[in-house]
Amino acid sequence: MMLKNYWYVACRPEDVVDRPFARIILEQPMVFFRDAQGQVTAVEDFCPHRGAPLSLGFVDNGELVCGYHGLRLAADGSVASMPKQRVHSFPCNRRFPTLERFGFVWVWPGDSDAADPDALPAFEWATQPGWAYGGGLYHVRADYRLMIDNLMDLTHETYVHASSIGQPEIDEQPVRTKVIDDTVVTSRFMDNVQAPPFWRMAMQQRGLDPDARVDRWQVCRFHAPSHVMIDVGVALVGHGGPEAPSAVKTQAVVVDFMTPETATSHWYFWGMARTWAVDDASVTETVRDGQGAIFAEDLAILEAQQCSLDRHPARKLLMLDIDAGGVQSRRMIQKLWDAEQQGDTESVHV
Amino acid sequence: MMLKNYWYVACRPEDVVDRPFARIILEQPMVFFRDAQGQVTAVEDFCPHRGAPLSLGFVDNGELVCGYHGLRLAADGSVASMPKQRVHSFPCNRRFPTLERFGFVWVWPGDSDAADPDALPAFEWATQPGWAYGGGLYHVRADYRLMIDNLMDLTHETYVHASSIGQPEIDEQPVRTKVIDDTVVTSRFMDNVQAPPFWRMAMQQRGLDPDARVDRWQVCRFHAPSHVMIDVGVALVGHGGPEAPSAVKTQAVVVDFMTPETATSHWYFWGMARTWAVDDASVTETVRDGQGAIFAEDLAILEAQQCSLDRHPARKLLMLDIDAGGVQSRRMIQKLWDAEQQGDTESVHV
Amino acid sequence: MMLKNYWYVACRPEDVVDRPFARIILEQPMVFFRDAQGQVTAVEDFCPHRGAPLSLGFVDNGELVCGYHGLRLAADGSVASMPKQRVHSFPCNRRFPTLERFGFVWVWPGDSDAADPDALPAFEWATQPGWAYGGGLYHVRADYRLMIDNLMDLTHETYVHASSIGQPEIDEQPVRTKVIDDTVVTSRFMDNVQAPPFWRMAMQQRGLDPDARVDRWQVCRFHAPSHVMIDVGVALVGHGGPEAPSAVKTQAVVVDFMTPETATSHWYFWGMARTWAVDDASVTETVRDGQGAIFAEDLAILEAQQCSLDRHPARKLLMLDIDAGGVQSRRMIQKLWDAEQQGDTESVHV
Repeated sequence: MMLKNYWYVACRPEDVVDRPFARIILEQPMVFFRDAQGQVTAVEDFCPHRGAPLSLGFVDNGELVCGYHGLRLAADGSVASMPKQRVHSFPCNRRFPTLERFGFVWVWPGDSDAADPDALPAFEWATQPGWAYGGGLYHVRADYRLMIDNLMDLTHETYVHASSIGQPEIDEQPVRTKVIDDTVVTSRFMDNVQAPPFWRMAMQQRGLDPDARVDRWQVCRFHAPSHVMIDVGVALVGHGGPEAPSAVKTQAVVVDFMTPETATSHWYFWGMARTWAVDDASVTETVRDGQGAIFAEDLAILEAQQCSLDRHPARKLLMLDIDAGGVQSRRMIQKLWDAEQQGDTESVHV
Repeated sequence: MMLKNYWYVACRPEDVVDRPFARIILEQPMVFFRDAQGQVTAVEDFCPHRGAPLSLGFVDNGELVCGYHGLRLAADGSVASMPKQRVHSFPCNRRFPTLERFGFVWVWPGDSDAADPDALPAFEWATQPGWAYGGGLYHVRADYRLMIDNLMDLTHETYVHASSIGQPEIDEQPVRTKVIDDTVVTSRFMDNVQAPPFWRMAMQQRGLDPDARVDRWQVCRFHAPSHVMIDVGVALVGHGGPEAPSAVKTQAVVVDFMTPETATSHWYFWGMARTWAVDDASVTETVRDGQGAIFAEDLAILEAQQCSLDRHPARKLLMLDIDAGGVQSRRMIQKLWDAEQQGDTESVHV
Repeated sequence: MMLKNYWYVACRPEDVVDRPFARIILEQPMVFFRDAQGQVTAVEDFCPHRGAPLSLGFVDNGELVCGYHGLRLAADGSVASMPKQRVHSFPCNRRFPTLERFGFVWVWPGDSDAADPDALPAFEWATQPGWAYGGGLYHVRADYRLMIDNLMDLTHETYVHASSIGQPEIDEQPVRTKVIDDTVVTSRFMDNVQAPPFWRMAMQQRGLDPDARVDRWQVCRFHAPSHVMIDVGVALVGHGGPEAPSAVKTQAVVVDFMTPETATSHWYFWGMARTWAVDDASVTETVRDGQGAIFAEDLAILEAQQCSLDRHPARKLLMLDIDAGGVQSRRMIQKLWDAEQQGDTESVHV
């Protein structure tokens, strides 16, 4: 169940420089390249001449040249030319709308006419000063919704990430889950706890005493089609947690963009936008390395979970309080998907 | 065609110490662990919460803890607890009866109520003094019945194991096959021959002259569901072969437990129980190494045979005298399987 | 769509010396071995006893001995003997007619009675003096007809082989395609051009000035079922191209035998028969290395093209002038295949 009429992260701008870049998104082989003005464009990765992947070719003067017989595709998907051939009657390749924004290349796999750049939300961490971002990409052989479940229920940190961000107090605090318009929010507050290793490191980078007692919070927000932004942090105890003055808190947003590849695999663009040491590239690197290691633990669990679910297709799963974030997110996806199936792609309201 | 209501070898006791151990048996993912009393138990390898394999978790105080969100499974398959959850209404995981006996962990993949520890025969080599055992495990991508065919017709030794236990005299002696109650027995006696390399080694270990002429025998016994015990040996010529006094003979049991994984793959627990040098661990090692190399030759043939049969599904095979052991064993499996399909699992008589 | 009643290249004579040689041809596992007179024979690679591949066994005195239980197959596919068995009633294995000719072993996968050695054309380069041949084999995971398309339209050289035999002038010259009896011929002539790197090397080996302007030609000939012979060369400008006297030209035949393995894979026997330096083995080696590297570029494209076509089964391809050679070849294959399906295997006329 993959929503089509949405912006998805396709790749990073630096992936598309002077060579074509191939990626399968929502089961559609796409090739990304830059036109003569340097704008990224995406078209079907299929040469209309003999079916070779266009991504095996090269980019010349803003046109994509097939590496087999030299058919040249313009940035809009039309055939620009081919040696010794009149091409005006050649069929066009489908073009997928793209956007370059917030440090990512975004693609709209659905109906081109419905593609609205304003439909992409303005993420605070990407548009406001005072934030530094670092991140990476994992290919995950699991339904992207398993990753949404994972991120909308951080109980798993106690078990999967015991040595970095997990701590028993996570389990002990109930979560609250709400649906606000088109967003699912699930929150957990752990007051007066010891910071776990990751946050101790962050406090130290921030100039705070890592041994100090803290109030810790996790506020996970799901937006369609598959974005999860998690407001996380610790503040010295008794200053109001997320509302504490910045001098006593260490705050970040865990940024998660899941782009389905197939029904059982996805591209996972993970990262962290932080509010401390924003000019220090070495902190960016340390945080990314730490986060990469932590998220690799999720990857292993999710791929095993997908295999396990595939082996037990008839089996029903439990849905507990802690699962409410995932359950509500899946419910929202289902609703939007039903609407897409009915052709009602413009005016979907959750 | 896999019989369910039988004891199968699942693993060795040392495979299940302080971590959960996963194995697929009769197409069922199982996880083995020890309860608080140290007893091995086996349950479905599937967390009822979100479907992750429980074998990715850990064992704590005799309970199996899911590595994703901490659900704790008791040894009987019921949910013992989960942080902040009331679990009394949670569904149980299926438990598979287990036994630890004769140096193996046994599992009963079928109807739990029918699991009878007394249904497991008491192997002489495992229960009587005067025997030493060594063995190993191969994963074989072939129907377990191809291995039964292989073991119930040792003619193949001349070709597959020409350099170790094969000798032309095997071909030259006819076999006799009988069905006695629930056992298929196929016997071959080679009188007054030169011992092949493996047996020369054994005679030497035994203190007999390896160049002496011997009477050699092979008595293969198939028991349901898939055990083959082969009484093998050589005795100095003219002393009665298997009936010869122990001073002039070198005798062993080739122990073969085949546990189906899928319809076209199985776990092959192979080994040899011997009557000579029973206290000498280095002899155990030498014999096991030799046997491992010999049985790897079978593995290569059987996997190629399975591929070949898959490519020729309509082709009929020849069934010769020498195949009688395999044919009778398969006939017995078919009969027992038909009975299982009719729900007649208790009172099967062959 | 694979034509059965034709001679296909199976392997090289040196592949079948004293051991059985296995190859799947037209989806049929075959085993090749030499009879007591040294003649190559081919039979089904399947032991009628227990279905093991016969190719795992050995050859003894012109008979193929199964490596499992010693069944002996005669060169005509009948069972010659088996230890302790009377074999006169055993079923025969199917035998595939074979020929050893022109440096290859040929096999006829279809109706044995229709196999006519005279149906194999006498290639000039293989039967006349003044030619030297070198070549190799690639396994290609693509429909063999994609290779025919490739070879019957050399426009791709400009793109796929830009650094060796490609040159812009190829694109600029139109091709002419004709069907003459059972042959499709597609020709391109490039007059007064600079020789590309491969031909510069050849001119040098030939004693001609590699910087001289040349007339270059490519005449591709397809014969059923899947042979493509390409007459290629360069002659000093103005001497008549392919008709020029041999002192001023460098001429070769690119020899391409495609033998289908499955519907989407084939064995590609590629080579070059040349008319210069025919006694110099080092030139044979240099040419083969160069050609091997060039054809590996095709292999990469074709396997990607096959994947791409598999992902877009409903998509129609363009058929341009330059594709006429492939289109006509496929049309001929279709016609012959229709005739084979109607059982009209003897008197097929295109």
